[in-house]
Amino acid sequence: MRNIKLIMSYDGSRYQGWQRLPRQAQTIQGKLEDTLRRILDEEITVSGSGRTDAGAHALRQVVNFHCHSDMPCSEILSLLRRYLPEDMGIHSCQEASPRFHARLNARAKTYEYRIWNSPEPRVFRRRYEYQVPQPLDLQAMRQASEALLGTHEYRAFCTQSGAKKDTKRTISRIEWTQNGPELHMQITGTGFLYNMVRIIVGTLIEVGRHERTPDCIGAILASQDRGQAGYTVPAKGLFLVEVEY
Amino acid sequence: MRNIKLIMSYDGSRYQGWQRLPRQAQTIQGKLEDTLRRILDEEITVSGSGRTDAGAHALRQVVNFHCHSDMPCSEILSLLRRYLPEDMGIHSCQEASPRFHARLNARAKTYEYRIWNSPEPRVFRRRYEYQVPQPLDLQAMRQASEALLGTHEYRAFCTQSGAKKDTKRTISRIEWTQNGPELHMQITGTGFLYNMVRIIVGTLIEVGRHERTPDCIGAILASQDRGQAGYTVPAKGLFLVEVEY
Repeated sequence: MRNIKLIMSYDGSRYQGWQRLPRQAQTIQGKLEDTLRRILDEEITVSGSGRTDAGAHALRQVVNFHCHSDMPCSEILSLLRRYLPEDMGIHSCQEASPRFHARLNARAKTYEYRIWNSPEPRVFRRRYEYQVPQPLDLQAMRQASEALLGTHEYRAFCTQSGAKKDTKRTISRIEWTQNGPELHMQITGTGFLYNMVRIIVGTLIEVGRHERTPDCIGAILASQDRGQAGYTVPAKGLFLVEVEY
Repeated sequence: MRNIKLIMSYDGSRYQGWQRLPRQAQTIQGKLEDTLRRILDEEITVSGSGRTDAGAHALRQVVNFHCHSDMPCSEILSLLRRYLPEDMGIHSCQEASPRFHARLNARAKTYEYRIWNSPEPRVFRRRYEYQVPQPLDLQAMRQASEALLGTHEYRAFCTQSGAKKDTKRTISRIEWTQNGPELHMQITGTGFLYNMVRIIVGTLIEVGRHERTPDCIGAILASQDRGQAGYTVPAKGLFLVEVEY
């Protein structure tokens, strides 16, 4: 069996997330598997480095799958580009070592969240950033971000975690960059819980609006209570940008 | 009567162009007039600096309209931002001098056409640029562009011009900029015929692919025959970027 690795981007706007769902649900995994099956004429199951939320995007999602076909990678690439919808793009298609697994071998992932911090409209970016018209205190947001670094139980920053679920994760980096009214947060960690990045950003925005103080994070983490953290910002500003192996 | 000037952007993807059309047709002018009528509670007719094609975009379209209402401009601005769809953005709303007319007073307009010259997918820009996977000879395209400058009969670069229509225009500037595989053409002129920018770009792309020589332009202009010029590139790469008064 060959093991093939894809690097792909997608605009998640019209999908119910990465993970395949039953029936007519539109998902990235489902669309990719269906297209590969037609191209290679065999059943294909793909593994992504991780699930992305409904409506969230990816700049460089990493995927692998096994197949029997002897079709050259260059031809798989060109057929995928021809048959996938315009909102899914394949950047590369290569043979991988037999043991490579996109999800199990991922050591760290980086997500980016994009905020447009202005009342001015930006019609061409509206699907790919979250508009916050009120001024934000970036210095306070950066200060609060630091308390999120390290290894913690992030249960308070997670939607729908079962009581027994392992919610310990490690965040190694949070970086905010500002370019005029563009505020981008990059966050790198071993893995992220369901909605975790979006709840972190929502909490930091509340800090930036002075609705919370920058030192609130410790108590929220300690509470392990979703109700203590901030709101969940929309998925459209969220991008998976890099996976490290 | 007050005279009010708007500067606006729009994503033209789902519109049948600027100009109001009968019945259910979705147009930028129609949507703007309907929204202004609801806000100001009077019939409003807007004048844009010029019509943009179905599917083409605007970064800074200039518009004016007359009204009786005494609603302050700041309130009109904020209500327009609230009630217009997300793909239409208002950048400013100000009182204009009584004689100002967005179309009749326009001295020059600049359009930009965006090409993504690579086989690599760009899913987040797919609605706002035209992908040309084959290599293009930019130097030849720049050379051909020069022959388009000046005052000419541009009938060969126009769709559906009646025989008697005035097709004389002046193009004062054509500039190509390259940023990796991004090729952007800016063109400034006194006015443009129907599809003129898109036929110019299609012709220059044929030069860039060596299907025509850079010195072909003179003969095309002289022919005054649409059949002699190149193909019409898609509207989605076309942006109205500036109007000078």
